[in-house]
Amino acid sequence: MAPGSAVPPPVTAVLDASQRWLPVRLGEVEDTLRASIAGWGEPLGEDAGATLAAGGKRLRPMLVLLCAGEDGGPEAVRAASAIELVHMATLVHDDVLDEAPLRRGLPTVAASSGRARALATGDLLLSRAFALLSEAGDERAVLLLADAAVSLARGELAQRQDAFDLTIGEERYLHRCRLKTAALFECAVSLGRDDAELRRFGAQVGLAFQLLDDVLDVTGPPERTGKARGTDLLDGTVTLPLIAAAERDPGLREIDLPGLDPAGAEEVCERIAVTGALATVRARALDLVADGKRRLAHAGFDPERRRLLELVADGVVQRYS
Amino acid sequence: MAPGSAVPPPVTAVLDASQRWLPVRLGEVEDTLRASIAGWGEPLGEDAGATLAAGGKRLRPMLVLLCAGEDGGPEAVRAASAIELVHMATLVHDDVLDEAPLRRGLPTVAASSGRARALATGDLLLSRAFALLSEAGDERAVLLLADAAVSLARGELAQRQDAFDLTIGEERYLHRCRLKTAALFECAVSLGRDDAELRRFGAQVGLAFQLLDDVLDVTGPPERTGKARGTDLLDGTVTLPLIAAAERDPGLREIDLPGLDPAGAEEVCERIAVTGALATVRARALDLVADGKRRLAHAGFDPERRRLLELVADGVVQRYS
Repeated sequence: MAPGSAVPPPVTAVLDASQRWLPVRLGEVEDTLRASIAGWGEPLGEDAGATLAAGGKRLRPMLVLLCAGEDGGPEAVRAASAIELVHMATLVHDDVLDEAPLRRGLPTVAASSGRARALATGDLLLSRAFALLSEAGDERAVLLLADAAVSLARGELAQRQDAFDLTIGEERYLHRCRLKTAALFECAVSLGRDDAELRRFGAQVGLAFQLLDDVLDVTGPPERTGKARGTDLLDGTVTLPLIAAAERDPGLREIDLPGLDPAGAEEVCERIAVTGALATVRARALDLVADGKRRLAHAGFDPERRRLLELVADGVVQRYS
Repeated sequence: MAPGSAVPPPVTAVLDASQRWLPVRLGEVEDTLRASIAGWGEPLGEDAGATLAAGGKRLRPMLVLLCAGEDGGPEAVRAASAIELVHMATLVHDDVLDEAPLRRGLPTVAASSGRARALATGDLLLSRAFALLSEAGDERAVLLLADAAVSLARGELAQRQDAFDLTIGEERYLHRCRLKTAALFECAVSLGRDDAELRRFGAQVGLAFQLLDDVLDVTGPPERTGKARGTDLLDGTVTLPLIAAAERDPGLREIDLPGLDPAGAEEVCERIAVTGALATVRARALDLVADGKRRLAHAGFDPERRRLLELVADGVVQRYS
């Protein structure tokens, strides 16, 4: 989200379409996030506060709230806040490694306050998420969120283990994405409502989100994504666009990934683009969202709530169209 | 703990003195730790496994188990394992920042597998701690551990905020130590048994532990501590030995902390030592342990269990004698 714009377009669409209760609950989530970070009688929450103020799409909280529905109450608000705290923790920790100067157009915690504070801030956000849920005795929510947080860390470890390995195939890539991204979306919907079809909806939308994010890393432009094209390549992360492109241009499996510089990474991005692989991956993501919506149809929501959840799913896709 | 020695001396003393149940439970903790890290059907737990295998004094698990007593059962073993996972997470994350090559005589995760994997491994250990407790529905334990984890992160943030600030006084230093170290000791005893005097015992022993750790950073020798003398100084961390020494040698408040190199840090260590401040800090730590033991006397334990807990407290001190 660009600084200055209060709410990104897909979210606005959902808010416009919803009854009054959703914006009210989302406001309560923001209040809870602020209270989770501040209020210790010392100015330690600065970095976490900066991360919070930088905003974000709040996709995961919105999924929690929509799935819980109008009667979700404070429990849903807490769960929505806790999942966003975990998400923020991963962003802050990612920045420690990437040494990225900017996120969402604002300086990262790592850039403005150093790696040490960013690391501790991430730990703080993660711990606060569990403190928030356990203070209220939300036992089921703690379990769901702890499992999702384990998946996130496993996904990160898997990605590092695979770094610079050009033999990584689609299956392994999808496994990583399920751990790294889809698990938290699945957790979000499950926090709102316990239903197997709904869980599948969350997982598919989350997977689509990661696929499209990986496409965006290849296409840029940096002005829109806030990072240079080919950041994944420079990081050694082999994603589906490269895997799919290499099926059409096998020479891509021979590139010197560890030796790439930013200019070289841009060239590889171009080479991936000309194979047409990006359209394939995008189509794949749209299929996932379509499948997710079909699952959603069997999750027993009334037509209005189902429509709102479909709007969130569409929001994930629109972001990249 | 040096590699090769299975159990460090203070722990051996407690084990020798205890009935058969404690070694059995500690063995179950090791099994639980191993199971928490491995068993995902993929070799991702390597780094976490290496951290686990490097051992440690297992002081916190021992406090949990002793406070819970012989009837503590699986709940106490889980709590003891979870708190050690949180402790291990902080060690792994510390290594990310310190770029320390060794811990306990073995290569750190950061050194052997890179900062990225170390960061994710720490997140994994932290998340696994909450997953372990929540899987069993230990609601009270989740709350205690989440609060302690928040304190740890706050302590780390406070320390970074204070970095290179030679005006830091004793009170602020103690506040940091309570967050960074004492909170987890307090959590350990509370996980075993809910008692206000016992909590105070845990907090005092934890505080003494940190004070003595900070003395050890000044005294070395590196062969024993596994790190160079004056590591805290190089890190910009102002600790009680320096604060107390500067009261006797005010010139110490004028040193160029950001400009110190390892040789300069050794010199400052010598200058701190000649003031006699180290003996003062050591005496302070012994007083804390003595106060902790007095509190313990009112916690309602039978004489045998009280004696074992006192042995653990003595173990903390003996480590430095």
